Amino acid sequence: MDIQDLAQRVTAGERRALARAITLVESARDDHRAAATKLLAALPQDRQALRIGLSGTPGVGKSTFIESFGMMLTAQGKRVAVLAVDPSSSRSGGSILGDKTRMDHLSRDPNAFIRPSPSQTHLGGVARRTREAVRLCEAAGFDVVLIETVGVGQSETVVAEMSDLFLLLLAPAGGDELQGVKRGIMEMADVILVNKADGDLKAAATRTCADYAGALRLLRKRPQDPDGYPKAMTVSALQENGLAEAWEALETLTDWRRANGFWHRTRAAQARYWFNEDVKQRLLARLQVPAAQAALADLSNKVADGVVDPAAAAQDFVDQLGKV
Amino acid sequence: MDIQDLAQRVTAGERRALARAITLVESARDDHRAAATKLLAALPQDRQALRIGLSGTPGVGKSTFIESFGMMLTAQGKRVAVLAVDPSSSRSGGSILGDKTRMDHLSRDPNAFIRPSPSQTHLGGVARRTREAVRLCEAAGFDVVLIETVGVGQSETVVAEMSDLFLLLLAPAGGDELQGVKRGIMEMADVILVNKADGDLKAAATRTCADYAGALRLLRKRPQDPDGYPKAMTVSALQENGLAEAWEALETLTDWRRANGFWHRTRAAQARYWFNEDVKQRLLARLQVPAAQAALADLSNKVADGVVDPAAAAQDFVDQLGKV
Repeated sequence: MDIQDLAQRVTAGERRALARAITLVESARDDHRAAATKLLAALPQDRQALRIGLSGTPGVGKSTFIESFGMMLTAQGKRVAVLAVDPSSSRSGGSILGDKTRMDHLSRDPNAFIRPSPSQTHLGGVARRTREAVRLCEAAGFDVVLIETVGVGQSETVVAEMSDLFLLLLAPAGGDELQGVKRGIMEMADVILVNKADGDLKAAATRTCADYAGALRLLRKRPQDPDGYPKAMTVSALQENGLAEAWEALETLTDWRRANGFWHRTRAAQARYWFNEDVKQRLLARLQVPAAQAALADLSNKVADGVVDPAAAAQDFVDQLGKV
Repeated sequence: MDIQDLAQRVTAGERRALARAITLVESARDDHRAAATKLLAALPQDRQALRIGLSGTPGVGKSTFIESFGMMLTAQGKRVAVLAVDPSSSRSGGSILGDKTRMDHLSRDPNAFIRPSPSQTHLGGVARRTREAVRLCEAAGFDVVLIETVGVGQSETVVAEMSDLFLLLLAPAGGDELQGVKRGIMEMADVILVNKADGDLKAAATRTCADYAGALRLLRKRPQDPDGYPKAMTVSALQENGLAEAWEALETLTDWRRANGFWHRTRAAQARYWFNEDVKQRLLARLQVPAAQAALADLSNKVADGVVDPAAAAQDFVDQLGKV
């Protein structure tokens, strides 16, 4: 594979090259990892998209929202990429965004690029791959990268750590219940969108939105927010209502953060964080080479049989590892 | 510090030497880590205590239970060590078992050894330290090592991974509520003890116990359990009722598992698991040496400023790390 050629094609915005490059960064194979590292180094470092993290539990209409929101942006001439972080896909066998028919128009839009979540075994690996896929999309000239995740535990944190903005999509709640949204996730949200503000659910959506707006006001004010943020709004992805207002709210926030230095500071902090995580992952990857695996298996047996001291064996092994 | 001398004193069962040895394995200092590794290697590998994991949320009477249960065991001539895994102690500033006055008699018993949880910053480090403290207690000739934790999330899993048996201590519930015990934690328990089966709460404890017994019967039968296990029983730590029966239930289970090979298999699997974790920790510890920290900080700045490619910088750094 000609990595320089692939890097050039990605940089030129060729969709098939981008898809192939993402497949490369998703691979766990040693030679693919080495190639991916070269590819990433060959990309321009100065292209930035607006990275928007998007979370919402199944049933809130996330696909419909991405379809409508994405189509609105591409109609404005923006190029939109959609990636997914799905910690459950290795277990369920499926993946979010796996069914592109749910985003029928967007998936056929030449200015959009939709990438289903890769199947994987642990969140650490997914995080790295997604982060590298984001960089590929930026290098390919996309203006907006939507990073979708499902509302389960740690994956929101992972997505928030690689996003400029975090959107939480919710459904109208019955009565005054707040759908048990975890406080930690509320605190991550820059904008909460209550979807399905249409038909029979419109009144419920308005009420739910007011409830969340109230809940957001009770949170401690964050330095990276201008007045009025974080914000709760209603949208109807189905009827395409409120989408322009939602985008405007995101743009206003982005402009304010850029002007006040928070944008750059957040990106720099994220870059440091991910760099340090990446170093750890690459260091631990040394344990995965076949010779190391064989030696470890042998030592594990001896430890299990009680014939070697585990602490000393571990230290000896690690000391040797560097010198091979 | 004379490590061979310390190892001999620990092996001879000297309490002050044991306390000092645990302080050594708890230290994160490089020279202490090296000394701790030597100390562990100098211990006899063939002494085994019964390792009992014990979990229960605050308020269920865990301290009173450990005091009564521990005193019963020492009265039988057994030597009992009590360790704690407390993932919250670094935040709260306190630590479980920190207040030895809660176990007034046991803490003054020459056949008992109580060690408060160390303050720490992450569960990985605590796990290693606790595991090494368990090995020190075994080398010092203790018959039973109780490893206490609080009922919050991941710490139970950590404790279960280093225990032969897992005890879950619960309080009587009102009505038919099952106190929201997480299914994952229920599935870890070998014996559930409903405490406070005394006075006004006796009837509630009996009812709660029956509810848990019913819930346990709904779980999938585990190969490592004889008929009737996992088991729910009532105890009164305050009135010292049911403690002998609880111990008998643990002994019966232990004997059965020993006879059927599960004891050895579990210990071997745990040893492998911890050995592999230890190798990872020791490998990552290379990043903590001052020269590595300085180089990482410098590279992080360059990554944050966008002047170097993070993936290539991470790989170069890791490649260099082995060769220094």
